[in-house]
This record gives sequence, C-alpha cells and structure tokens, in this order.
Amino acid sequence: MPDDALPPALPALPDGLAVRHAARRGELTGHTSGLAPGFVQGNLAILPAALADEFLRFCQRNPKPCPVLGISETGSPRIPALGLDLDLRHDLPRYRVWRDGALMAEPADIAGFWRDDLVAFVLGCSFTFEHALMEDGIPLRHVQQGCNVGMWRTSIACAPAGRFAGPMVVSMRPMRAADAIRAIQITSRFPCVHGAPVHIGHPHLIGIEDLSRPDYGDTVAVREDEIPVFWACGVTPQAVIAAACPDFAITHAPGAMLVTDLRNSSLSLL
Amino acid sequence: MPDDALPPALPALPDGLAVRHAARRGELTGHTSGLAPGFVQGNLAILPAALADEFLRFCQRNPKPCPVLGISETGSPRIPALGLDLDLRHDLPRYRVWRDGALMAEPADIAGFWRDDLVAFVLGCSFTFEHALMEDGIPLRHVQQGCNVGMWRTSIACAPAGRFAGPMVVSMRPMRAADAIRAIQITSRFPCVHGAPVHIGHPHLIGIEDLSRPDYGDTVAVREDEIPVFWACGVTPQAVIAAACPDFAITHAPGAMLVTDLRNSSLSLL
Repeated sequence: MPDDALPPALPALPDGLAVRHAARRGELTGHTSGLAPGFVQGNLAILPAALADEFLRFCQRNPKPCPVLGISETGSPRIPALGLDLDLRHDLPRYRVWRDGALMAEPADIAGFWRDDLVAFVLGCSFTFEHALMEDGIPLRHVQQGCNVGMWRTSIACAPAGRFAGPMVVSMRPMRAADAIRAIQITSRFPCVHGAPVHIGHPHLIGIEDLSRPDYGDTVAVREDEIPVFWACGVTPQAVIAAACPDFAITHAPGAMLVTDLRNSSLSLL
Repeated sequence: MPDDALPPALPALPDGLAVRHAARRGELTGHTSGLAPGFVQGNLAILPAALADEFLRFCQRNPKPCPVLGISETGSPRIPALGLDLDLRHDLPRYRVWRDGALMAEPADIAGFWRDDLVAFVLGCSFTFEHALMEDGIPLRHVQQGCNVGMWRTSIACAPAGRFAGPMVVSMRPMRAADAIRAIQITSRFPCVHGAPVHIGHPHLIGIEDLSRPDYGDTVAVREDEIPVFWACGVTPQAVIAAACPDFAITHAPGAMLVTDLRNSSLSLL
C-alpha cells in the first residue's frame, strides 16, 4: 500500500478515514474507544467462504447479538459502503488470527494472512448506542469509571445455524428507572447496534447468578435505586466462532475496532 | 334532541357513534370498557371558563397524566374533531356533577346542568395503550382477572398551575421483562394516552409503600419473575380537580367514558 503517499494523521483523528489511515500507517495499534467521535465502530469477523454462509445465517437468526453492518465479496478485503478507501487488511489497529480455534497471532496488519476465499463481516457494536445514550444525558457508569462494561453468558440460547451455536452474551448497564425507560426508547431506534435491551430487572431469570462476577469485562456496581439493564453483546459472535473451532478465522483484537465513515445517527431508524 | 329520529343502536355498538347514540337515547348508562373496540375513549372534565385556563395550563405542564385530546369552545358542548354529531351533554353513559368539591348528582344526561360559561376537556385514557399492548400479545393481568387496574398516589409532584396542584397518580401493570421492554416501546408511540411509563421497578422510589394496597382500583399481584411498570394515570386530573374544590364541575362517572370516532392507532406517533 502506498502508505507514504497518504497525508499525515490528524492528531485528533476526527473521523473514520483518519483513524483507518493512522492504523494503516502503523501509527495506531491500540484501542479505538473515543476516537472519531460520532462515527460508527464495528466488530470484525473474517471466515473462509465455506463457513461464511453458515455464519451469515447465524447472524440472520440472531440479529440482536449479531447485527450485520456489512459483508465483503468473497476474497475482497473491501466493503465500500462502510468507508472511503477502506481496506480491512490494514485499517484496524490490531487483529487476532485463529487456527483451529487457537489464537496464533495478534498482528497490526493481516495482508500476509489474506486469502482469496475469505469473507469479512462487520457487525454493529454498542459504542453507537452508548454514544446516543450519553448525548441524551444518560450516565454510563463504566464510562465514568473508565473501565469496561460487564458481560455475562446467559441461559438464552442463540438460534443455531450449521456449526454456529451457543449462549447469548449480554452486557449490563445499571440505570435509574427513568434512565432505563429512556434508554429503551433510544436503543430501540438502533436495531443495527443491538437494539432494545433483551432483559431488565432480575438477572437470575436469564441465568446470571452473580452480578458482581462478570464472565467478561469489569464489575460495575448496581446501586439500590437502580435496575440492571441487559443488552445483547457483540462478544456473542466471537464466542460462537471460537466454539465452532473454524480451521481459520481473523477477528479484531478486543477494543481495536473498525471505524467506519457512517455517522452514529445514520443508524437510527427515526 | 331528535333522539327518535336516530336509527336504533346496533347491538354490538361497533363504533364511537353507536356508543354515543346509545348513551344519548338512555339505552347505555354503565361503563364503556370493551365497547367500540379500536376506538379512542376519553376522560371528561368540564369547568367554568374562569378555571378552565388554569386547568389547561396544568395539563400543558403535566402532559403524561393529563394528555389533552380536545377542548370545546366556551359554552359549546361539542368538540367536532373528536366525533360526528358529538354532544357532550348527552353522549356519555353517566356523569358526575360537583359543587364546591362535593358530588351532588350522578345523572345520565347533563343538559339540565349546562351553562354558557362551561369549557369541556377530553383527556386521553389508558384504554388506548392497553388496546395496543393486547394487540401485540402482551397479557394484562387486571384484564385477565376482570378487575380494575391498581392505582396509587405517588411522591411525584405535578407541576402546579393556579389552583391546580397535587401528586401524580399512577397505574401499575405487572409484566415479565420482555413484555415490559416491549410495552415501553409501544406506549412511547402514544404520548396522547399517557405515553411511556414514568417508573419501573422499585415502587418505594416514587412513594408507594405497599403494592398490595392501591389507593384506587383493585389489587393485582406482582409475581416473582415480573417487574411493576407504572404509567401516569388519568385519575390525576380528577384528584387535582377535586382538591381544587371548584364551585362547579362535571366529570364522567368512573368507567363511563366518552367514546370518540378516533381510531386508537391514529394516536400512534409512528
């Protein structure tokens, strides 16, 4: 890639293109949280074509945890609808390469791993709805505390498709009642980034025994006057892919997302 | 009124006009629940013009408990936008006439009480959103049990206006989490009939000490796997009017509502 022909990265990385070019030049190799405010970030999953059809069917059957924002043509690392000059081989800060279910590399570029039979999926992520919640003045404790959201495997089974099956993983955000009601309204407008919550109130009803011990992420306290609000989580497809032990797969490294040219608000239904 | 010129009431009272004419002819003097399915029913409040401005201001400041569907011109018993041939002096099954805050009559017709200085308000009621919830398959326990919804005075103060002030009264419907989330989505589309809930979860946070002892209506149990969902209630303006002790007022008798020509779905924002 003619990286040296690109303009220098803007210090603030104001939009998706700036973030992708910074990643492409190797200047950005960490997480993307807070970069390019207002632009949609997505989870990446790349699978061989033989598995891609099954995975797409899995996503279609489980749209809340697996909302598809874009799919490449087989063999193409590009999804033009998601970004100008987008190249999935270089444009994420860091990747994970999996073989037979085992992590084998965590490179900042996957040009050397690309194959003509690969299909790339970009799935919506909670950053978009969290942006909308914060724009509306709803506080998010994990953001205030500078930690990750807490996530749990639940007793809710995803609808299986071929080799892909497993439990839904959810994230939890504690909220006061008025904020929970408003958050349901807001996130209902965003079906492409997990949409409305899948549960509120009683964690044990979805198989969560202990809110103080998440399966992924960090512990965030639920106060006496709050309700735990649970959304389907993008870790679900990652866990499902890992469980399927594909002979080959590539994902984004945790927190190092694809930043697109889409505005968060453009994903709102209304 | 040329009542004898009207066609006979249809046995099933299929629409608002049929219900109003049956009431006008004196053939319907009881509650309107279940009549004219799909048509909007409304609460009635009639006040002297000197008080009407303050009451309208109160409604404007408290749209969730007091959503105004229509207001008559001073001295007119008609609100043409709400129904063909509508005459508020005759078209409700039963009324309550108040003097200095005391109930003085419960007639089936108020032609003899009408004055040139009266202003009529029709306010949205929960029947409309309950219809939308049931159409969506959400069970309502008080409907299944054939009793009234439970209602409570809360610690939420309405925004006062002139002589009108007091606590918000809410109704509670117990729901499983998925139904509660869906109910928030559906009722958010209906701001003219109380809109989204005002609270979910913890009753004591809105001043409700005992869910088994409603201030109005009947007790409906909340099961272990359910969440209490609270909506602003049309009893609020009735209680506020009673507390203001106007020298004269007329309201509908409990359950004997105005049935309009509006379709419930026409009140949906989307």
